[in-house]
Parts: sequence; structure tokens; C-alpha cells
Amino acid sequence: MASFQDIAPDLGKYIIEFAYGDIYSRPGLDLKQRQLLTITCLTTQGDCEPELSVHINTGLNVGLTQTEIIEAILHCIPYVGFPRVMNAMTIAKKVFSER
Amino acid sequence: MASFQDIAPDLGKYIIEFAYGDIYSRPGLDLKQRQLLTITCLTTQGDCEPELSVHINTGLNVGLTQTEIIEAILHCIPYVGFPRVMNAMTIAKKVFSER
Amino acid sequence: MASFQDIAPDLGKYIIEFAYGDIYSRPGLDLKQRQLLTITCLTTQGDCEPELSVHINTGLNVGLTQTEIIEAILHCIPYVGFPRVMNAMTIAKKVFSER
Amino acid sequence: MASFQDIAPDLGKYIIEFAYGDIYSRPGLDLKQRQLLTITCLTTQGDCEPELSVHINTGLNVGLTQTEIIEAILHCIPYVGFPRVMNAMTIAKKVFSER
Amino acid sequence: MASFQDIAPDLGKYIIEFAYGDIYSRPGLDLKQRQLLTITCLTTQGDCEPELSVHINTGLNVGLTQTEIIEAILHCIPYVGFPRVMNAMTIAKKVFSER
Amino acid sequence: MASFQDIAPDLGKYIIEFAYGDIYSRPGLDLKQRQLLTITCLTTQGDCEPELSVHINTGLNVGLTQTEIIEAILHCIPYVGFPRVMNAMTIAKKVFSER
Repeated sequence: MASFQDIAPDLGKYIIEFAYGDIYSRPGLDLKQRQLLTITCLTTQGDCEPELSVHINTGLNVGLTQTEIIEAILHCIPYVGFPRVMNAMTIAKKVFSER
Repeated sequence: MASFQDIAPDLGKYIIEFAYGDIYSRPGLDLKQRQLLTITCLTTQGDCEPELSVHINTGLNVGLTQTEIIEAILHCIPYVGFPRVMNAMTIAKKVFSER
Repeated sequence: MASFQDIAPDLGKYIIEFAYGDIYSRPGLDLKQRQLLTITCLTTQGDCEPELSVHINTGLNVGLTQTEIIEAILHCIPYVGFPRVMNAMTIAKKVFSER
Repeated sequence: MASFQDIAPDLGKYIIEFAYGDIYSRPGLDLKQRQLLTITCLTTQGDCEPELSVHINTGLNVGLTQTEIIEAILHCIPYVGFPRVMNAMTIAKKVFSER
Repeated sequence: MASFQDIAPDLGKYIIEFAYGDIYSRPGLDLKQRQLLTITCLTTQGDCEPELSVHINTGLNVGLTQTEIIEAILHCIPYVGFPRVMNAMTIAKKVFSER
Repeated sequence: MASFQDIAPDLGKYIIEFAYGDIYSRPGLDLKQRQLLTITCLTTQGDCEPELSVHINTGLNVGLTQTEIIEAILHCIPYVGFPRVMNAMTIAKKVFSER
């Protein structure tokens, strides 16, 4: 986000105010559940490597276990197939190894 | 699934054996969490109306509340935008009203 | 949007406050240009029929011509192929005929 | 295609000249192989119901068997998951039953 | 395009004849508008980094301002979410800095 | 696949048992046809570079010619547009040059 401060400062503002301020702060699901849903959403969408990396890290920071993250990614196989899952697992492995 | 019994009987078999037998029965996440991830995955992917309908129903059957399902769908807005979320919410509303 | 007032009232609020309040009101592009970009974005994404219908109508309301809308949709052929373009053109034809 | 003759006559022209004239007439793959690839491509992409319907019909017309078409659709499961495959199989079943 | 001259020379020919010859030369939208639509289309689709880079450069060459390009990318947030927009903004930033 | 042996050993198992064991071994289409469909499927889906690389190699190993692979990729242009096709052709060129 910080890297767009020069050319598009509102992009970071929208992420903070809308994504985090409005959405993540909603009641009904806790932060661990929300990070698991985010990881599932980004795995499914594809072409989201930087965001997946951030949210796998954040997920671990708020208390998700590596197993829960791996299970969430594997859970997508029947719905999106192996390529999206292998892409996400590659990123998860990298994040796990760097902590 | 039953509707493909005549032209592609193995399709139902794969869903039962692989999707349900192999994936849903894995440890690490409970059934409610898995249904919530499935709903998120199908919301993100788009063009999955029949499957979303089935899994919102199944989610309610295994104990998810309507609020949890609505929150999971709304949670996707920052990642996939409003159209995918509105499509999924339309289906959720229909499923809720028919139970 | 109004149809989610009962089960997810914040969805309409986010569309009004974020999509319209924050994004459409930005300077740098006028409303006609923004509607043309929205039509292009929804054509590309696929599975956005209700939103395309709304934005083709809104585009005509803010002064886009039918020709500009048709050209924006045709312009996508080299980037997304014929199926997405034919889906969008089917909706454009319906909207044009109903006004 | 004919249905866009009034609002976008060049759309049909591009399909005939580019898709059929330039691409389908290329050497290296025969018409049956090309229709099987088209069915695979449309199954994968999703939200292509009208085009899938046309090409499953055309595939049968150029000599593909129902089994080959069903196998091509089932073959996509590991790469795109069950929802896309079930959508395509629903259309295949409808086309088969109407001939 | 030039890089496929050896293994698939017709690919470059189709881009020149169909994409540029047939589509970009159509009346109804000017070149600046068409480049803005292309940038929107590629931002939405995802996994189009090389093409986005080319068209952001071409957009600047035909007279689009950096602001117009940034606004077109930001405009997609409500429709495709933040990840696609951040991917495109990363490329825009790189193109801007290299000119 | 081997690279996930430590964090998600079942992922490789599912690919071997389900993708190869169940799907590729089905009758009705031969191995060359199946690899051509896989290449088409991955070209269409996008963001599948590692898998495309593997399957273009495997396709050549089971007897597909470079021409057949190039034709399968070019065949997708009318359905998915030039960017997905150029991404796949870039990978094909790299695989061809490394053998």
C-alpha cells in the first residue's frame, strides 16, 4: 500500500477506511475467520500473489495455525481445481519458511 | 448431481468420493468452517448459482447462522468487488426465504 | 440494491458511500467516461448481467450514445474474446429496446 | 449472431471472418479437434452458456460423439473444479436431449 | 509480438490486422478513449502484465495523462476489488517511472 | 508436486490419485487428446504458468507436435482474446527452446 503513496494516495486510504475500517471491523465473524475467508477468496481469484502473502502472514499473526491455512487452501480443490491451489500453496510455503 | 446419472455417472461419483470423501472429511477445519469457505470460494468464482444455493442450504443445515453466511459474502467485497457479492447475496436471500 | 435492505442493509450503504460517494465523485474523469469504463469492466468480468443492465441505462442517462456503448463493448473483443462481448451485447440490445 | 445485425452488424462479420475464416480454417488440427478444444475453452471460462450450446451442437454435427464431448468436459475437473464442469454438463445434457 | 515471429507468425499478424486494423480503427471512440478502455479491460481480467505495460505506454503516447490512467484503474475498485487494482497500479507506477 | 511433500503431502496424492488415476486414465479420449485439452484449459484459465509448462512438456513427450500445441493455443483467441494466448505462447516458446 505504501508504495502507491506517490501516484495514488487514495488507494491506501480506501484500503484502510473501507476494507479494514468498514469490512474487517464488522461483527459476526472474528478476525481469524475473516483472514481464513480472505485466503480462500484470494486463492480462488488467482493472480493475487502479493495480497495472499500479506494475508497468510496476517492470518498467522492473529492466531491461525499453519494447518488451518493449509486446510483452507486444500479445501478449494473441488471448486477451483489444482492450479489455483498449487499457486496458493507455493506462496504459503514461502511465507511459512520466512517467519 | 443426480441429474447427470444418465450421461456422466462418474461425475456424481467423483463429487461423493473426492469432494466429500477426501476433502470435506479432512481434519483441521470443522464442517461449519468448511461450508463458510465453500460459500466464499463460490461467491468469488462467479457463475456458480446452483452450487451456491446447495452450499448455503447445507451451511444452514450444519449450524451456520444466516448472519455468518451474510458476513462471509460481504467480506468478499474488497477482494472481488460488488457484482460477485450482489450475485451471491441474491441467492442467499432466495435460499433463506424458501426454508 | 434496495432488495438487500432486509438481510444486508450495509451492502446498499457501501455501494452508495464507497462506490458512488468515494469513487464516482473523484475528479479526473467525467461521468460519461466513468460509465463507459464501468461497462467495459463488467463486460470483461462476466456474470454481471444485472449490473451491466443498470450501468448501460445509467450511461444513456448521463449522455452516452448507443454507439459509444456498442463501441466500448466491441472494443473488448481482442482482449476477452467473443463470448463476453456477445453476453454484454445481448444485455445492451435489451436495454436499448426497453427505453 | 444474427440477433446483433441491427445494433452491431460488424460483430457477426468479425465472428465469420476472424473466428471462422482465420482461425477455424487453419491447418494442423481438424474440425473435430477444434470443436473439442472450443468446448473445453468455454467450459473453463464460464458464463458462456449460449456459445457452449452452439459448439456442442456443432461438435456433434462434425462427427464428435456424445462420449467425446462428455469426456472433454469431465477432463477439466482437476483444472477448474466441479462447478464449471457441472454447468457445462447441464448444457450438454440439454443439447443431447433436444437433437 | 515480434517474439512469436518464429513459432507462431500469424499471432502478430492477427493482432495487427484484427485488433489494430479492425477494432482500433473503428469510428465512434477516439484513440485516447480506446486506450483507456483497454487499460480498464486488462486491469479487470488480471494476469495481463505485459499487455498492461504496453497499453499504459501507448496511452501516454496518444495523449492520456498519468492522472487519467490512474483514475481509470482506481475506478475499477468497486467492480473487481483491490487486488486487481493494486496489480495494475504496480505496473502503472513502473511504466511512469521508466519514461 | 514434490515441493509440497513437507507442508501438504496429500496435495500430491490427490493429483496422482484423482487427476491422473481417475481422470487421465478414463477411456474415450487418448493421452494426446487429453494433453491438448489440458493445454487449452490452462491457457483459458490464466495464471497457470507452472502447470502449462509441465503439460506442454508432457504433451510433447506423449507425441504431440509443436504445431499441434501452437494451434491449440492459437485456437483460443476468439474465445479468450490475445492476452491469455500470448501468455501461453510465451511459455510454449520457452519449453520448446529448452528441450
